[in-house]
Amino acid sequence: MTDSPSTPPTACVLIIGDEILSGRTQDLNLKFLGERLAGLGIRLSEARVVPDIESRIVEAVNACRTQYTYVFTTGGIGPTHDDITTPCIAKAFGRAVIRHPEAERKLRGYYGDKTNEARLRMAEVPDGAGVELIENHISIAPGYRIENVFVFAGVPSVARAMFEAVAPSLRGGPPVYSQSVDAHVREGDIAAQLAEIQGQHPNVAIGSYPFMRLDKLGTSIVARSIDKQGIATAIAKVAQAMRALGGEPVLGPAP
Amino acid sequence: MTDSPSTPPTACVLIIGDEILSGRTQDLNLKFLGERLAGLGIRLSEARVVPDIESRIVEAVNACRTQYTYVFTTGGIGPTHDDITTPCIAKAFGRAVIRHPEAERKLRGYYGDKTNEARLRMAEVPDGAGVELIENHISIAPGYRIENVFVFAGVPSVARAMFEAVAPSLRGGPPVYSQSVDAHVREGDIAAQLAEIQGQHPNVAIGSYPFMRLDKLGTSIVARSIDKQGIATAIAKVAQAMRALGGEPVLGPAP
Repeated sequence: MTDSPSTPPTACVLIIGDEILSGRTQDLNLKFLGERLAGLGIRLSEARVVPDIESRIVEAVNACRTQYTYVFTTGGIGPTHDDITTPCIAKAFGRAVIRHPEAERKLRGYYGDKTNEARLRMAEVPDGAGVELIENHISIAPGYRIENVFVFAGVPSVARAMFEAVAPSLRGGPPVYSQSVDAHVREGDIAAQLAEIQGQHPNVAIGSYPFMRLDKLGTSIVARSIDKQGIATAIAKVAQAMRALGGEPVLGPAP
Repeated sequence: MTDSPSTPPTACVLIIGDEILSGRTQDLNLKFLGERLAGLGIRLSEARVVPDIESRIVEAVNACRTQYTYVFTTGGIGPTHDDITTPCIAKAFGRAVIRHPEAERKLRGYYGDKTNEARLRMAEVPDGAGVELIENHISIAPGYRIENVFVFAGVPSVARAMFEAVAPSLRGGPPVYSQSVDAHVREGDIAAQLAEIQGQHPNVAIGSYPFMRLDKLGTSIVARSIDKQGIATAIAKVAQAMRALGGEPVLGPAP
């Protein structure tokens, strides 16, 4: 997707893998990517989890890459038969799959006489322009970028390393700041005042999340915005409302 | 979606909430729902995470409810201004929002003189046929079903209680069994044999997942199928291949 440099960039995370949908594996990449992207001023606007089925992956890649500034995929780039992400990405872009010479060199250097055809599948990338390897300092086999799609491993430590490798190349937007305030006040008691405060601060997104600590219900309010002063004012009003309801507001770190 | 009773039922989970996309909150509902649905023989075919934006929720609900046997939404049914799931579901179905008398009675009974307009928002459901409340024995405010869409809270304990309340009413399929076998054998060394075993067992899905334990890399193989005997045979072949590579296979519980 091409968008104007003045529009805040957007992103989608595409989690590829039967193991996430079957409940075998707890996904840990979405939370990490959401936090890091927010810090870069890139709005994570959607995430999808799709099974290891070619047509479903191709369809999701094409739906997302035209809609968002960046797409980050996780999973399916290992050496085994169930790792089908690369042929699917290639198909989504209408390209052939080739073995990338630099990736092959890295893998041969790392695996030595343990190099085999299965491991060399990890050197495969879509053919053509706009493809760049993404370094993997954890387990060598690289990820890659093709146009606005970044293809990462599913193993969280490797996905993180790959994200950090590309982060400096991403076009960020104004950073989104946030601050929280928590109190043992129930959501239903503070809801009307929260709605009023939200109305007074249209450029601050005020989220309300119930919690249970020491067997007592409470509410965590999170204000998110590119406007630090707006956050501070909104959070001060929420804290005051919490105090008026008998709560003892605990403020999170200033944005 | 209407499908023939002989087709195995499918499902989609729709996770609604800015807090998941911003990385503030780790989703814990998808793994639970994936496991429970697999046990009921319902194939979780997709999950989507969407922000608290009306148009995005409406679009996702309509895309998913026509495509899958069941849709389960989580999040956005509390008492605060950022809880917008119900008006979005109603809009997706082209219906008005009404206050459900039984839900109102439950909430008034629970909250007594703390009942207020914000809390009574939790009694709201889409108008019309095919709407049924879903019991919430944790925090009273009910979820609901509208046609093939089940609307759950986001708090994991409540989402689980709501799922268990509706589970007996779901049409299951043949249960999907699974068994795992782990060994300190590297994926790239066993990949060729795995592909061969997968070829011999087209009705068993064989997944391969690398792990690191005690600083040693290993591979966990999971076979999933409705055919217990097929799983047993495939897993026995994988274990043999692991042994031939010098690994000591550890089998998971028999399916």
